[in-house]
Amino acid sequence: MTGTLVVAGLGPGDAALITPEVTAALADATDVIGYTPYVARIPGRAGLRLHATDNRVELARATHALELAAAGCRVVVVSSGDPGVFAMASAVFEAAEQAPHLAHVDIRILPGITAMLAAAARAGAPLGHDFCIINLSDNLKPWEVIERRLRLAARADFAMAFYNPRSASRPHQLARALDILRAECGAERLIIFAHAVTTPDERLVVTTLAEARADMADMRTVVLLGNAATRRVGPYVYTPRHAL
Amino acid sequence: MTGTLVVAGLGPGDAALITPEVTAALADATDVIGYTPYVARIPGRAGLRLHATDNRVELARATHALELAAAGCRVVVVSSGDPGVFAMASAVFEAAEQAPHLAHVDIRILPGITAMLAAAARAGAPLGHDFCIINLSDNLKPWEVIERRLRLAARADFAMAFYNPRSASRPHQLARALDILRAECGAERLIIFAHAVTTPDERLVVTTLAEARADMADMRTVVLLGNAATRRVGPYVYTPRHAL
Repeated sequence: MTGTLVVAGLGPGDAALITPEVTAALADATDVIGYTPYVARIPGRAGLRLHATDNRVELARATHALELAAAGCRVVVVSSGDPGVFAMASAVFEAAEQAPHLAHVDIRILPGITAMLAAAARAGAPLGHDFCIINLSDNLKPWEVIERRLRLAARADFAMAFYNPRSASRPHQLARALDILRAECGAERLIIFAHAVTTPDERLVVTTLAEARADMADMRTVVLLGNAATRRVGPYVYTPRHAL
Repeated sequence: MTGTLVVAGLGPGDAALITPEVTAALADATDVIGYTPYVARIPGRAGLRLHATDNRVELARATHALELAAAGCRVVVVSSGDPGVFAMASAVFEAAEQAPHLAHVDIRILPGITAMLAAAARAGAPLGHDFCIINLSDNLKPWEVIERRLRLAARADFAMAFYNPRSASRPHQLARALDILRAECGAERLIIFAHAVTTPDERLVVTTLAEARADMADMRTVVLLGNAATRRVGPYVYTPRHAL
């Protein structure tokens, strides 16, 4: 008997942002697998096994999930935010590609509120025009690729969202990214540091590239950059629907 | 007495993708305002006024919403998807900017599942690496801006999501965009036409730029383009977490 594998997005933190579709999948699961802090958000119940694992073991976690599903379990892999945006969905397909004996497993991805959408909503509408999303971690790609994307995105006048802007093992990359953006976009461009949005630790800093410092971000921060037309109206930041 | 203005995302169509936060705001509203097909998704009840308006009147609708809130109503402006992604949030701030006498209204944006995330989830994980989002409508920006963004995004090797790819009044733009993308990305690049995702009319076409035709899209389609590494695994399309 083959089970099922669901990869579900838990949203940015607040339970009121978990979709009913994800809640139903969790209620039907026999096994929940994920990075420890995300699994900690799932209430235990009889008949549910929780498998919490460390960060940076995404492929092993994905393979484990596929194996449990192949053995007949109803498995939910939990991600924060949306599983398709720098989260577990790609890792699951990577694992399936490497394990043809598990290729028959039925995989469903359930979308969630990704961090940039929750952060943008708190700030106003800074992503209200064309924009791009860049993972600033160089764990899985060369730093040169990131620099090139930053420059091209700035020349296209995209608003931007940056995931994984800074961690203990990558303390210097964000400062370099901010230098590039200041050179390309000018010092007055608006930037938002959104920390732990929708959690009790939420903190939003709206400033300009002139004032932005790398230590305004940490592992729980998503950073949003406006385009050339982005501006303030009252306490809000928004990007008009028209191009400059 | 001043009321409140909430701009809420209803997600792509399936009620199971509406967040509990949005459901609670709708339950507390005195007035719901929006484009007719979105307002049609809200069940009526005693004490709730529904204001359905035509497309292309976003600013007038936003001003009306601000006026009702200033008069003490609890107003919810409904958007499909996420209100901050090519939807009503920017229009509301634009209207607030133009009407300083309404600037005291308390505005809250509630995020939703935007079409590209729902479409990506159905296809697999095509947005699993850095990507950008471009509105292909040239109603609010010159077509030259769109062409330039397409070329720069292709050179950055972003995966891409295209909103508003085609309408009765803009039948030719998508064909031009596909020509540019074929020239920049090559004919074998994977592309997904996702029509009315999560509704009974859902239809997904996965093909290559060589086979892509503009008439595969209409007003209810979001189009996803892979990056250079995007590939198929079984019935799914995914973009690896590593850069090529």
